[in-house]
Amino acid sequence: MNDADDIVRTTVTEAGEVGLVEPRDFHHRAPFTFESGRTLPGFTLRYETYGRLNAARDNAIVICHALSGDHHCAGIHSLNDSKPGWWNNFIGPGKAVDTRRFFVVCANVLGGCVGSTGPSSIDSATGRPYGVDFPFVTIRDMVRSQKLLLDHLGVTSLYATIGGSMGGMQVLQWGIEFPAFTRRMLAMATTARESAQAIAFNEVGRQAIMQDPAWNHGDYPRDGGPRVGLAIARMMAHITYLSEDSMDRKFGRRTVRSRPTNRVPAAGQAVDPEFSALNAPARTDQPAPTTFDVQFEVESYLRHQGQSFINRFDANSYLYITRALDQFDLAAAHDSLEQAFKVVEAETLVVGFASDWLFPPEQNRTIALALLRAGKRASYSELNTDLGHDSFLLESPQLYDLVRGFLERE
Amino acid sequence: MNDADDIVRTTVTEAGEVGLVEPRDFHHRAPFTFESGRTLPGFTLRYETYGRLNAARDNAIVICHALSGDHHCAGIHSLNDSKPGWWNNFIGPGKAVDTRRFFVVCANVLGGCVGSTGPSSIDSATGRPYGVDFPFVTIRDMVRSQKLLLDHLGVTSLYATIGGSMGGMQVLQWGIEFPAFTRRMLAMATTARESAQAIAFNEVGRQAIMQDPAWNHGDYPRDGGPRVGLAIARMMAHITYLSEDSMDRKFGRRTVRSRPTNRVPAAGQAVDPEFSALNAPARTDQPAPTTFDVQFEVESYLRHQGQSFINRFDANSYLYITRALDQFDLAAAHDSLEQAFKVVEAETLVVGFASDWLFPPEQNRTIALALLRAGKRASYSELNTDLGHDSFLLESPQLYDLVRGFLERE
Repeated sequence: MNDADDIVRTTVTEAGEVGLVEPRDFHHRAPFTFESGRTLPGFTLRYETYGRLNAARDNAIVICHALSGDHHCAGIHSLNDSKPGWWNNFIGPGKAVDTRRFFVVCANVLGGCVGSTGPSSIDSATGRPYGVDFPFVTIRDMVRSQKLLLDHLGVTSLYATIGGSMGGMQVLQWGIEFPAFTRRMLAMATTARESAQAIAFNEVGRQAIMQDPAWNHGDYPRDGGPRVGLAIARMMAHITYLSEDSMDRKFGRRTVRSRPTNRVPAAGQAVDPEFSALNAPARTDQPAPTTFDVQFEVESYLRHQGQSFINRFDANSYLYITRALDQFDLAAAHDSLEQAFKVVEAETLVVGFASDWLFPPEQNRTIALALLRAGKRASYSELNTDLGHDSFLLESPQLYDLVRGFLERE
Repeated sequence: MNDADDIVRTTVTEAGEVGLVEPRDFHHRAPFTFESGRTLPGFTLRYETYGRLNAARDNAIVICHALSGDHHCAGIHSLNDSKPGWWNNFIGPGKAVDTRRFFVVCANVLGGCVGSTGPSSIDSATGRPYGVDFPFVTIRDMVRSQKLLLDHLGVTSLYATIGGSMGGMQVLQWGIEFPAFTRRMLAMATTARESAQAIAFNEVGRQAIMQDPAWNHGDYPRDGGPRVGLAIARMMAHITYLSEDSMDRKFGRRTVRSRPTNRVPAAGQAVDPEFSALNAPARTDQPAPTTFDVQFEVESYLRHQGQSFINRFDANSYLYITRALDQFDLAAAHDSLEQAFKVVEAETLVVGFASDWLFPPEQNRTIALALLRAGKRASYSELNTDLGHDSFLLESPQLYDLVRGFLERE
């Protein structure tokens, strides 16, 4: 791919939809020093844009993605695409983030695995993937690299930066790192520092990956690697994105109709032979094992989540990005959260979700309170959904109205 | 070991302590048909007793253990024991369950791995461990097998049955299965049916075990097996036994003092070489990996939890017992929970813990309400601890008073 030398044009194929989009690659061809002190000779960020940069070059909104997200947050890549970008309900002409008015930019994070430079990228010094030799990545590194992309795109200041979960951490970092550049922060379902419980879940996921023999100290072929460990990590993490109530409503104790379903993939879903030990043919000297076959719908759902994740995500990226999450602690980096926010110039809206137990409402409220104590313009809204952490990604007219109001405020 | 042909005597070595105890084995030498329809020619339950059965043989209390517990709930096995039984704070002379008054019996559950018949037991038909050929076990099977032990011990009726978590499920099952025999039920931190979320966590644990190549469809040597998978399952499950607040208080974001700690075991703790991939010597052609070494105290704690568990628990037992948990649904087995409790004769106390998010207060309250609607004597108490699901195991004068009051009531 070539450098983006002009603004990517999007085709509106139907009313209210971003429509066909294509990802571009931004190659930063100068040394980039990570927060850790390590330097790479350059990096690539894969990104998408929707809408157009105005003449004043000040209508840009950066969308920051979460752990398992990527740059494809709206629109479709081909007319046959069965699924649009991950925040398509939120971004588009006339939607909460209105692409008729705003120039929306979303990049795969540094350290990621969907086109941006990360541990699965080739180290030109060795001709092999970096693996765990990739520099340690922080939320700040992610934001600093995205700033270089925005400079490249000619953006002079950000109308807003928006994100949920890890995206919300980046949002806060934007306001601190580039205060004059960042005019609005919209952070949802996030935290100013990872709690011990969140670190604990991330650590179990990392152990599942690193204890998988196929991890091999991070040195594995592109089409191999610790697929079992990564699937386990994802299955577990996925539980933390939902709520007990939403799981009870969605699955309850319903059992799967006919026996093992794992062997029958969902439409368009490839079966990973490595992740179906349970459905492997029974040993011929005994009856087929049934006790531990998938039995409840929730089991089938989780197995599917694990299986589809390994087809799109790199295990080393999972290690790096969860470490970036765990490291995130704005208060520690600046003595106190209030102190961290002293430099902020942006107006901020923080949105918490009542049933989010990964980054609970209190952790979101804390952010807005610290901003207010630092003398900044900030507000906090709590939405009473029962859909858990993932609430920010789901259809919510209430959320859309909140966001519209915040973005329209002068 | 021989059949228990008399009541095991306990030696009180210091005031207020059960003191030295020894486990005994009860061999049931007649066919036992599981709820699934499968029959074994007999089974063994390993158990301990504290206190003495009175002349009327009606002062017995059965303690029912949780998923990872066993029969050793009080006292010590030798004077060098560094740790007493798992509920030693709760059971003993003058304690909440007063062994001066009560004859306390606790057995390792059927399907377990600490002396009772389970998947790691030798199948006399093959001369090898049953593995996944062991019959599917239910909470009801556990209770029915314990009833045979009590008959053997000469107990004519139970003064009370007491347990938390899976132990609480057994308590409820006692009251339904043997109503005339069960005079009091004390169920804590439990549920009348596993929620989708609880099933989901169990399923991820099972997948971690079964996807470990060393599981080998349940066919592994006694000293081998899926140790990595079992450790991952335990690490994850352990998070669900705590609360976010207790983890924040216990660990917060504190980091370990010096680098990798995994290589240095806690006192008395053997290091499992298989569970220390992270601390394996670095490849000599590159610097030692540090990014993913243990960094936060909570990580070190969880790794230790995983590591110590694999030295005392069988992976197949973990599969069977979590399946028994998932299957548990009193309402489904009897149309409604109220209907399930119609036969109950016992007086019941249910105790929920405010910060328990595995079996939340509501699920405990539901049990007491259904008993009341069924016309039974029941009460519900909620303790405002912030220690999560494990609260029932921890020091709590409030809980002790509750239990004493309940047991002393005529």
